[in-house]
Amino acid sequence: MSLVVQKFGGTSVGDADRIRAVADHVARTKRGGRDVVVVVSAMGKTTDDLIRLSKDVSDTQPPREMDMLLTSGERISMALLCMALSDLGVPALSFTGSQAGIITDTDHTKAKILEIKPDRLVEAIAAGIVPVVAGFQGVSTSRDITTLGRGGSDTTAVALAATLGADVCEIYTDVSGVFTADPRVVPSAHKIPQISFEEMLELAASGGRVLALRSVEFARNFHVPLHVRSSFTWEPGTWVKEEDSTMEQPVVSAISHDTSEAKVTVRHVPDQPGVAARIFTAVAAAGVNVDMIVQNTSVEGYTDISFTVPRTDLSHSLEAASRIADEVGAKQVLADDKIGRVSLVGAGMKSHPGVTAKMFGTLAKEGINIEMISTSAIRISCVVRQEMVEPAVVALHTAFEL
Amino acid sequence: MSLVVQKFGGTSVGDADRIRAVADHVARTKRGGRDVVVVVSAMGKTTDDLIRLSKDVSDTQPPREMDMLLTSGERISMALLCMALSDLGVPALSFTGSQAGIITDTDHTKAKILEIKPDRLVEAIAAGIVPVVAGFQGVSTSRDITTLGRGGSDTTAVALAATLGADVCEIYTDVSGVFTADPRVVPSAHKIPQISFEEMLELAASGGRVLALRSVEFARNFHVPLHVRSSFTWEPGTWVKEEDSTMEQPVVSAISHDTSEAKVTVRHVPDQPGVAARIFTAVAAAGVNVDMIVQNTSVEGYTDISFTVPRTDLSHSLEAASRIADEVGAKQVLADDKIGRVSLVGAGMKSHPGVTAKMFGTLAKEGINIEMISTSAIRISCVVRQEMVEPAVVALHTAFEL
Repeated sequence: MSLVVQKFGGTSVGDADRIRAVADHVARTKRGGRDVVVVVSAMGKTTDDLIRLSKDVSDTQPPREMDMLLTSGERISMALLCMALSDLGVPALSFTGSQAGIITDTDHTKAKILEIKPDRLVEAIAAGIVPVVAGFQGVSTSRDITTLGRGGSDTTAVALAATLGADVCEIYTDVSGVFTADPRVVPSAHKIPQISFEEMLELAASGGRVLALRSVEFARNFHVPLHVRSSFTWEPGTWVKEEDSTMEQPVVSAISHDTSEAKVTVRHVPDQPGVAARIFTAVAAAGVNVDMIVQNTSVEGYTDISFTVPRTDLSHSLEAASRIADEVGAKQVLADDKIGRVSLVGAGMKSHPGVTAKMFGTLAKEGINIEMISTSAIRISCVVRQEMVEPAVVALHTAFEL
Repeated sequence: MSLVVQKFGGTSVGDADRIRAVADHVARTKRGGRDVVVVVSAMGKTTDDLIRLSKDVSDTQPPREMDMLLTSGERISMALLCMALSDLGVPALSFTGSQAGIITDTDHTKAKILEIKPDRLVEAIAAGIVPVVAGFQGVSTSRDITTLGRGGSDTTAVALAATLGADVCEIYTDVSGVFTADPRVVPSAHKIPQISFEEMLELAASGGRVLALRSVEFARNFHVPLHVRSSFTWEPGTWVKEEDSTMEQPVVSAISHDTSEAKVTVRHVPDQPGVAARIFTAVAAAGVNVDMIVQNTSVEGYTDISFTVPRTDLSHSLEAASRIADEVGAKQVLADDKIGRVSLVGAGMKSHPGVTAKMFGTLAKEGINIEMISTSAIRISCVVRQEMVEPAVVALHTAFEL
């Protein structure tokens, strides 16, 4: 029998009505003759509420205890969903991360899955039962409860789909799929019926909010087709899968943007081997995830190095960069938190060298200055002033006829 | 080193301030040179809120899923308490029922503890860590999460104290101990410094709300001294322990009352062997816990059988009793939900036969009619009209000079 993993995010199980609607859909899928494994997130704002409560109680918030605290959220939603399925006559059993055999390392609040031992799930499926698994959580090799960090429930769903050999992993959310641009910025943006893993990775990395980067990597590595769709309309959404070589690729598939980052520039850095390594080692040691890095050609033995970081990490990044700047004799460290990024993503770009020129030309025509550029085989990103991000997205969406 | 188990109920950990106050107290105990194991309930009304939510979602509420749902409550309170202890520099680790090795049978929502495998707790204590254990929950022999039912957190605390060989199990609550009567009814009621397990059992069984019956039974069986005290004033409370033969026992220790029951009377029952057994087998099969049973001497081959049950179980009880009444040819089944019960409890009663007469005389003087009587070696209970319960308690408290 074919098997589908269905993952429901926080808004999809936000209240009693929503939980019953999800149960209806799972029951329909099961009655349609397919085996179903469900993965759920915590209800609506539960996780945010628990984080707030922990801040009221404590200044230290030890990571092991944060994990114990936050994993209570999925227990609530999965137990309620099983009850709603039972009302519909569909046998269902809830499983914590630990009961589902999701074994992780001991890196609390951002644990990595090491192994899945799905015996209990396999047993339940064979008995005609729908297993409802807590997303976002696992149990560590030292038998402590862990969480998988941002986007963790998507990761749980994809990992289970890979382990159980599911035909597809359906990711239900509050939007109806992946769009050619953010519909709040470009009202004419439309849903993309199908997109390759590589394009989805670039979109997720460049500000697309629909899927977490990590779950897309996982799906690509384990060849699990994803179907991103709405739990409000239940209509078909966007398939994310292996690139289909028989189909002609559109040159540009989508435009993403991100206004959550800030830029750090280290000016007048001596152009010597090892200097960049020292700067980024220090920044990484401060726990900061650097995104774009640009270094210009050196002039008279000196160069400028710019990089972007999440705006919430700006002060840590500045501190680390300034320390190294002093040590290596750089002139100045500048911060800029008024930037934004616009990216074109498309598998067809690989064979269409004119895309970059067209992108820069479009931005120039709109009077938008480009401050940093970074490219991959299927993506071009430009850093611009933050207030120019939306006009840039609109202009590019029209120019590339999306 | 001496070991104390400290159990904190829902009001004791009701909000962020209360959790920090509890952490202070645990830290003081630990710094005073004693090892501490903490057991916590869910915060305040969390459990009630979750039950309400489950009713919004589902009509069937499968017991296994109710257990999964409700056990999220203690995870929240124990993780927060560990964070607050960490703020105070006291190393603490939270443990779910499963992690604490509390193995139960598979009777969901009212599981019994079969065994405790406290390896992780022992390890933590040896390392100078305060284990904070989720009350009320365990893991079944089929690896499912279970709850221990009403008063389950007290049971967890006493069971851990017995297993770990603790010197005392301290039960912190929102009252300062066990009183000679309910202070809301008798303002002059006072705290009892020490009471025997047997008396406490009778008090718990006859309406005293401070300790759950089951945890007192457990403490008596395993010789674990209890200390019931307030987490608001932290003053010494009531010790519950083996009867101390060197001390003179007061004749009457306390007066308890209960207005949560209803009475069922099966009238004109043929006085034949096996009839009572059939009635109470049917009532038990309906899942109802019968409390008092009174059968009068038969007149002309017929008798009346009355019994009390929790008022919430009245309709199930009536249904079961009526079915058997028809089968055995009894005349009538009557229900009365306007009753209440008043009980005198005291170890000294055993050797003071005049207590019963004095109790009945006191009630008669107040014009209070006695509808049912039930006695044990150290308790006398009378069923009276519900509105006469409070006057009865007040009159008896005065008559027995408590």
